[in-house]
Amino acid sequence: MEIEKIVEGVLKGDTRSIAKAITFVENNPSDADRVVNAIFDKTGNAKVVGITGPPGAGKSTLTDKITKNLAERGFKVGVIAIDPSSPFSGGAVLGDRIRMNSLSTIKGVYVRSMATRGMLGGLNRACLDAIDILDAANFDFVIVETVGVGQDEVDIIKVSDINLVVLVPGLGDEIQALKAGIMEIADIFVVNKSDRDGVDKLLTVLSHFNSMTDKNIPVFQTVATEGKGIDKLVDFILPLLSKGDLKEKRKKRLFERLKYRIMKIIQEKTVEVIMEKSGNIIDRELIKVAERESTPYKLAQTLMELLCK
Amino acid sequence: MEIEKIVEGVLKGDTRSIAKAITFVENNPSDADRVVNAIFDKTGNAKVVGITGPPGAGKSTLTDKITKNLAERGFKVGVIAIDPSSPFSGGAVLGDRIRMNSLSTIKGVYVRSMATRGMLGGLNRACLDAIDILDAANFDFVIVETVGVGQDEVDIIKVSDINLVVLVPGLGDEIQALKAGIMEIADIFVVNKSDRDGVDKLLTVLSHFNSMTDKNIPVFQTVATEGKGIDKLVDFILPLLSKGDLKEKRKKRLFERLKYRIMKIIQEKTVEVIMEKSGNIIDRELIKVAERESTPYKLAQTLMELLCK
Repeated sequence: MEIEKIVEGVLKGDTRSIAKAITFVENNPSDADRVVNAIFDKTGNAKVVGITGPPGAGKSTLTDKITKNLAERGFKVGVIAIDPSSPFSGGAVLGDRIRMNSLSTIKGVYVRSMATRGMLGGLNRACLDAIDILDAANFDFVIVETVGVGQDEVDIIKVSDINLVVLVPGLGDEIQALKAGIMEIADIFVVNKSDRDGVDKLLTVLSHFNSMTDKNIPVFQTVATEGKGIDKLVDFILPLLSKGDLKEKRKKRLFERLKYRIMKIIQEKTVEVIMEKSGNIIDRELIKVAERESTPYKLAQTLMELLCK
Repeated sequence: MEIEKIVEGVLKGDTRSIAKAITFVENNPSDADRVVNAIFDKTGNAKVVGITGPPGAGKSTLTDKITKNLAERGFKVGVIAIDPSSPFSGGAVLGDRIRMNSLSTIKGVYVRSMATRGMLGGLNRACLDAIDILDAANFDFVIVETVGVGQDEVDIIKVSDINLVVLVPGLGDEIQALKAGIMEIADIFVVNKSDRDGVDKLLTVLSHFNSMTDKNIPVFQTVATEGKGIDKLVDFILPLLSKGDLKEKRKKRLFERLKYRIMKIIQEKTVEVIMEKSGNIIDRELIKVAERESTPYKLAQTLMELLCK
């Protein structure tokens, strides 16, 4: 009943219902399907833009400026800022409130930060549910912002329709960064804080990378704090999202995203079902493992058999 | 047959067998149990030391110096450097080879870097298997070094027997770092690069934190590049690992580690079994989901039913 009302509100684009729906899928993994199943046929229109980059690159400011720019053009924009709940993530604790205030007053903008809890994941599953919620609420864009460090954080961004990788002059290990996998992720490089020393070096590295790989990933320069370069960047992104070759890419990524999402749902659900069915078996058997009378793999096997009972 | 030989070598502490065994559990998730089950009753002696901290704190250098120090005292030390395969992780690509060379020539030291592949995890499961392998090979210490950003990276370090959190003056958001969860992880704070400006400010923040939380986490100062402060730090760690209250902590963490590990095994195995049994169901049904005739949750449910068939 409650869920029906929330879903109704989401479909009307009501902000409070959206907030409630996202909180619901975050807090109730076992009932998240009730929300998603109810809205899923209204999804598929929002474009998902990933913004990632190392700490200190100015991702939040860039995200904010892009969001404002899109809003000024009349688009509805949802922002999901992923906080990996890391001791070193910074920003999310103190910065969030300030940020929410700055963006949430803009018409057609919804900002939400999501954080992990506990040890067995669920963040990425919930984030994908949240994208659906915003999509069903008729948002044109969903921007997912994440620190591109850490497996889950890279995984979630990989499945966006388009990915902005934010770099900053003088970061130190640009070359290694490129080697280590950025090529799979980036559709656009954004050199932020481009008024800083070292910008030429970074641009050279990127152009060298492009000529070596034949990838030809476009490079944009911004000074997000001053709003410089944002308009040009957005001008470039918008038509790109409807271009033929990117459409093919989008389709491919959509399938990857769905596959990834389904596996994440299954993994979370499996642990949940086992926890529910195992009663005190786990604690009892864990002692045996701790005393080396059993092994983690044997116990895992025993617990998996519970799934079918 | 092959595995039996590898296991035999591991139990004798043979370096090449250890390397082969770790590669095996990394590459063969479905057969990792064969290695672990065969060695598990020889494990439980190695102390697991986690070293974590933000990028740029000098973790690698600190890890190397601690490792050398322990080796000079006659201990066998295994180092597992976790590379989250992030575009921004740096270090692992270029730095690794240099590092391996510097440490691997020391008697009683084994260094290994582990990286994630693909999208559905398995790194932390393999890392825990590798700890067992080193443990069974009679290593006294296993040091797990990771960038403390990202869910998986924090999870894996949480379950160590003792955790060093490395901080560095002038990092900027020390206070936020403390707020966001470091307290759960740290047994010891190491202020590295302590000859730098801003060290007093950082020390004040840490002492403020300690008095506020009644945690009284010891703070050590090091300049790892020059080897300063390492001896004192190791002097402090060694007796700590056999102290009563830490023993209780260790026991608690051992149980958490086992539980976490078993769930990770189950999650990986579940996806594997489903992939195996599903044939072309996934691709066929994914199209339905993409066309909004089904939903991710419904497909997940269908696939989970395969587990019991």
